[in-house]
Amino acid sequence: MSTQRKPRGPYRKGIQRRAQILDAALEVFAEQGDRGSSLQEIADRVGLSIPGLLHYFGSREELLLAVLERRDTLETDHLTTDGEGKITSAGEAVVRTIRHNMDQPGLVKLFVALSAAATEPDHHAHAFFADRYRRLTETTKAGMESGQANGTTRTGVNPEHLARLLLAVSDGLQVQWLMDPTVDMAAIVETFNRLCESE
Amino acid sequence: MSTQRKPRGPYRKGIQRRAQILDAALEVFAEQGDRGSSLQEIADRVGLSIPGLLHYFGSREELLLAVLERRDTLETDHLTTDGEGKITSAGEAVVRTIRHNMDQPGLVKLFVALSAAATEPDHHAHAFFADRYRRLTETTKAGMESGQANGTTRTGVNPEHLARLLLAVSDGLQVQWLMDPTVDMAAIVETFNRLCESE
Repeated sequence: MSTQRKPRGPYRKGIQRRAQILDAALEVFAEQGDRGSSLQEIADRVGLSIPGLLHYFGSREELLLAVLERRDTLETDHLTTDGEGKITSAGEAVVRTIRHNMDQPGLVKLFVALSAAATEPDHHAHAFFADRYRRLTETTKAGMESGQANGTTRTGVNPEHLARLLLAVSDGLQVQWLMDPTVDMAAIVETFNRLCESE
Repeated sequence: MSTQRKPRGPYRKGIQRRAQILDAALEVFAEQGDRGSSLQEIADRVGLSIPGLLHYFGSREELLLAVLERRDTLETDHLTTDGEGKITSAGEAVVRTIRHNMDQPGLVKLFVALSAAATEPDHHAHAFFADRYRRLTETTKAGMESGQANGTTRTGVNPEHLARLLLAVSDGLQVQWLMDPTVDMAAIVETFNRLCESE
């Protein structure tokens, strides 16, 4: 008798299928952004019809949101397992994420468009983004505080302000980069990190 | 005989009417953001029908863009004529603009939504925003360079990076503030300005 609590049977299959669709969706959005034809392209890649695809998510909007959630998860995995050594600061983590994003303009566009739309309190993604910013602010603030404690981050400045600035820099530069792809986002975040270093 | 080149007659009246509509549109968007009912509300305030209103702009989209252009112009006037004394740095100008924006969430939303949509190269507002970022980057970079020359801004850092960071901070914080109105954008930009000061 097994004590495992892993999902089994049809339910487990549903979860696997959902993950498979999300991987295909991430590929499609990374390659071409969000187009009128995106759903058909994703459905083709996983051998489903569009209604068959949406069955797993409820709506096109929920699928887009699930794609961004999946991207956040992969990004966190990538940061901790990419073998490039330990990340020593919140700022360095953002530089890596931004470098990674520069290969995926379609996903950056999706993020920018959805986060902008989600500023409306009744938008279906509002709670997701509000929670995401709250969480990221807390984590980044903790990173800044430990940097201040160990002498690498400039002291005498509000660590929550530093955290919110880092997130704003990352979001704002993505818009500038989408407008002009010659903008070197990673180098500019590195300059920001230098401003935050203790002298 | 007059040598004046000011527009006269019907043409001049058209320009005045257009400006009057834009003022009404700015009020409506500042008060309530962009809603399904916004055009009707603007039309009512200037005593026109919706088609009569759009006659002056061509489309709803062009009207939204004209509103943001008008806001940029008013903002520049406000910065130079508000009687609060001379602005001494690009960073200080952004703090004042952000303070002003905190009274107009509807216009901030309009800006965030339109700039996000305009990242698509074939969007009708793409050229406007691409040009706006280019122009603002140049002006802000010049401000940073003169700060470095007169000893108020930190040297040894790329002035274009500082300029792009300041613009990114301003854009990114607006999204955070729309998600959570307790975020004190102006105070956080002031912290950024401190990071840019020479020691």
